[in-house]
Amino acid sequence: MTTSSPGTARDADRPRQISSVPQAQLTAWRSFLEAHARTTDLLARELKEAEGIALTWYDVLVQLSEADGHRLRMQELAERVLLSKSGLTRLIDRMERHDLVHRSACPSDRRGTFAELTPEGLAMLRKAAPTHLRGVREHFAELLDDEEAAILTELLGRIADAATMADID
Amino acid sequence: MTTSSPGTARDADRPRQISSVPQAQLTAWRSFLEAHARTTDLLARELKEAEGIALTWYDVLVQLSEADGHRLRMQELAERVLLSKSGLTRLIDRMERHDLVHRSACPSDRRGTFAELTPEGLAMLRKAAPTHLRGVREHFAELLDDEEAAILTELLGRIADAATMADID
Repeated sequence: MTTSSPGTARDADRPRQISSVPQAQLTAWRSFLEAHARTTDLLARELKEAEGIALTWYDVLVQLSEADGHRLRMQELAERVLLSKSGLTRLIDRMERHDLVHRSACPSDRRGTFAELTPEGLAMLRKAAPTHLRGVREHFAELLDDEEAAILTELLGRIADAATMADID
Repeated sequence: MTTSSPGTARDADRPRQISSVPQAQLTAWRSFLEAHARTTDLLARELKEAEGIALTWYDVLVQLSEADGHRLRMQELAERVLLSKSGLTRLIDRMERHDLVHRSACPSDRRGTFAELTPEGLAMLRKAAPTHLRGVREHFAELLDDEEAAILTELLGRIADAATMADID
């Protein structure tokens, strides 16, 4: 019965990628991807031009500066900056050559290698932060009133939480 | 007068990065980054596990499949997938070795090299699309009703448009 209805027949002819996500949500998804790509691309370029460092480097410096003792296990750092372990290893190699971080062994845990912020790394972060934060203010914060910001926090927080849960499953 | 008020004194002691973006907007920014990182990380892993391809490869296949004649200039493709030109060159090298795309010279334009979708690339896209779209549905679309999706489209569209304009300036 159901397979002979015209609606079902038409649906079956459509490419699955079109029919499987409703239009309003698909449009929201594309806006989400585009907003992220455009803002991070712009912030990365502004940071590179003004401070000479990549946004990924800046992100590593921020994560380490917020951690206890200004250091994190490589595995934990990789999760926070969302890089693969091999990607982070190469990144930390380059940052170590610029004296911005250094590696140290964890005395209580043979598995562990720490990445630790150096004084030079902290100085670089302090120097670069105003440029980055000015960008976040100009390209994001100033475009939203408080109520709109709260709505975004609720909707995007819901999506982040669900993805974190799905990841644990 | 103002500098002697306790509130201002406390503000002045704070790191500049905290005080320069209002709290509601800073929280929204962090939710935005986290939602993007968690969902794309999850989608990338699901795609790799089920279909054996990276999300960046999938993105290239989608962009080419939507272009006239299934091909784009390298420069244009780099902008659409938001990779640097050198990053895209390496990516297209690898995809070309798997016969998913091929390069061709542009007859009317000496500057131009095209990346073009192959039949194998189109077949890979068709095979992988249901997995990717199921992920977008589960981890994004099903978490939003139509009104919430429309609000996200409006707010994130505003941010994407402003970043595009800032980029042109």
